[in-house]
Amino acid sequence: MIPFVKGHGTENDFVVLPDPEARLDLTAERVAALCDRRRGLGADGVLRVVRSAALGVDGPEWFMDYRNADGSIAEMCGNGVRVFARYLQGRGWAGGEVGTRAGVKSVTFSGDRVSVEMGPAVVFGESVARVGGVEFAGIAVDVGNPHLACVTSADIGALDLTSAPWRDVELFPSGANVEFIAPAALEPVAMRVHERGVGETRSCGTGTVAAALASLRAAGRSAGRLAVDTPGGRLEVTVRDGGASTALHGPAVLVAHGELTADWWESTGQPARSVGHSTAR
Amino acid sequence: MIPFVKGHGTENDFVVLPDPEARLDLTAERVAALCDRRRGLGADGVLRVVRSAALGVDGPEWFMDYRNADGSIAEMCGNGVRVFARYLQGRGWAGGEVGTRAGVKSVTFSGDRVSVEMGPAVVFGESVARVGGVEFAGIAVDVGNPHLACVTSADIGALDLTSAPWRDVELFPSGANVEFIAPAALEPVAMRVHERGVGETRSCGTGTVAAALASLRAAGRSAGRLAVDTPGGRLEVTVRDGGASTALHGPAVLVAHGELTADWWESTGQPARSVGHSTAR
Repeated sequence: MIPFVKGHGTENDFVVLPDPEARLDLTAERVAALCDRRRGLGADGVLRVVRSAALGVDGPEWFMDYRNADGSIAEMCGNGVRVFARYLQGRGWAGGEVGTRAGVKSVTFSGDRVSVEMGPAVVFGESVARVGGVEFAGIAVDVGNPHLACVTSADIGALDLTSAPWRDVELFPSGANVEFIAPAALEPVAMRVHERGVGETRSCGTGTVAAALASLRAAGRSAGRLAVDTPGGRLEVTVRDGGASTALHGPAVLVAHGELTADWWESTGQPARSVGHSTAR
Repeated sequence: MIPFVKGHGTENDFVVLPDPEARLDLTAERVAALCDRRRGLGADGVLRVVRSAALGVDGPEWFMDYRNADGSIAEMCGNGVRVFARYLQGRGWAGGEVGTRAGVKSVTFSGDRVSVEMGPAVVFGESVARVGGVEFAGIAVDVGNPHLACVTSADIGALDLTSAPWRDVELFPSGANVEFIAPAALEPVAMRVHERGVGETRSCGTGTVAAALASLRAAGRSAGRLAVDTPGGRLEVTVRDGGASTALHGPAVLVAHGELTADWWESTGQPARSVGHSTAR
């Protein structure tokens, strides 16, 4: 039997797979089946809990092997590492530091909230996003991945984010996550985000960091702690020294734990569909 | 701790909640939280497993208390009752008959397939559906709920079902599920379905029954067994005596079992969001 935990941070949801000795055959197909919201458990990604030693890497005892819902490998996820840390805490395992593909992340707990050090957020330019013919000025921010954070006085609830906002391909050759932040006044601000390759999401940890940095700059500040309301819930962000270091704070909820059915796990090792089904749509 | 099982039939997915003595306080808010695909486990509906005696109703030992994802009560669900029966079978509980709000349903097992007697499918008229200005002739079928089943030689994969197809409000005063079935030739047929109040779905048990009846009639037959490929997978339908009785056959998969976290269950008894979060979209 394959144990799992289901959890979320501001509705960014994950299947946690404890695999201390790295024995699971976790193929891209299996990750996609686990994250399929009808055939599987359903999630935005998988957090495999594995000992650094079992992977032959240096670092803290536990390593977060993060996979996207499509089975691809990702470096980091601000909400994911908070859910990962909450799981370690619940098991009574050491949770103060977590190894990730983006380096070691420090986590701390305070009541129902989990904080993670997110490293630097570096402004690398000014640019604009366009939605429905309207232009929004923003700053380009690198939080390990590229963001265009636009502080605006417009009604962000009315924006149509069903397709990606236009952004400058020369400044963002690999695309960008685009944040719209309102109001321009501080505390709290509201944010919507369009994630590259995904679409609009309920929450985005690195996007929240970029949004907080942009909001503080718009208010003439280079540091502070700011509440950011995403559609999935409230996060808080600490910005220090103009973004030299940042931290993300917020809830991390464990919804359920259990075991995957052996038959189901075996079935995910094979192609999921017979040919006939593809004709229906 | 609250135990659960997650399963699906042709990607129509359910949270099974064993509650033999009817002790759970299963409010509409809790059902909606369970079915929320990011805050909860995620499903199209909840199947509460309760003894008929504990509810004070006559009938088989086990009653399927089916709830829609929004928390409302529903009478029957062809894919749901097959997943429900698979769960009873796995527990070694009697599974030959299941009580539902639409009466007693007989179920049988054959390998990985579960069959359920669906009762009569009654043709009550001829009508048309319109999609993107194109008209599709179909028959009105009552399978406990109203359907408009349209057999067509058009490419159903190209239809835009993001909004409800037009149908005659005089014939369907409470709306209808609309099925598009191709090709007109038999064995197997492909189906897409738009469910009233929901939108396009991966599969619909009663819709498959209506589609099979319409396909057989289009071929000049009043009885037979027909494979119907939905986007979620293949179902088979038996039609007897022009629809005097019908049966639905197909896979029912148990993906995982486990327990809901006590803190999470308690939290679903309260409003899910603080006021500040509603500003973001």
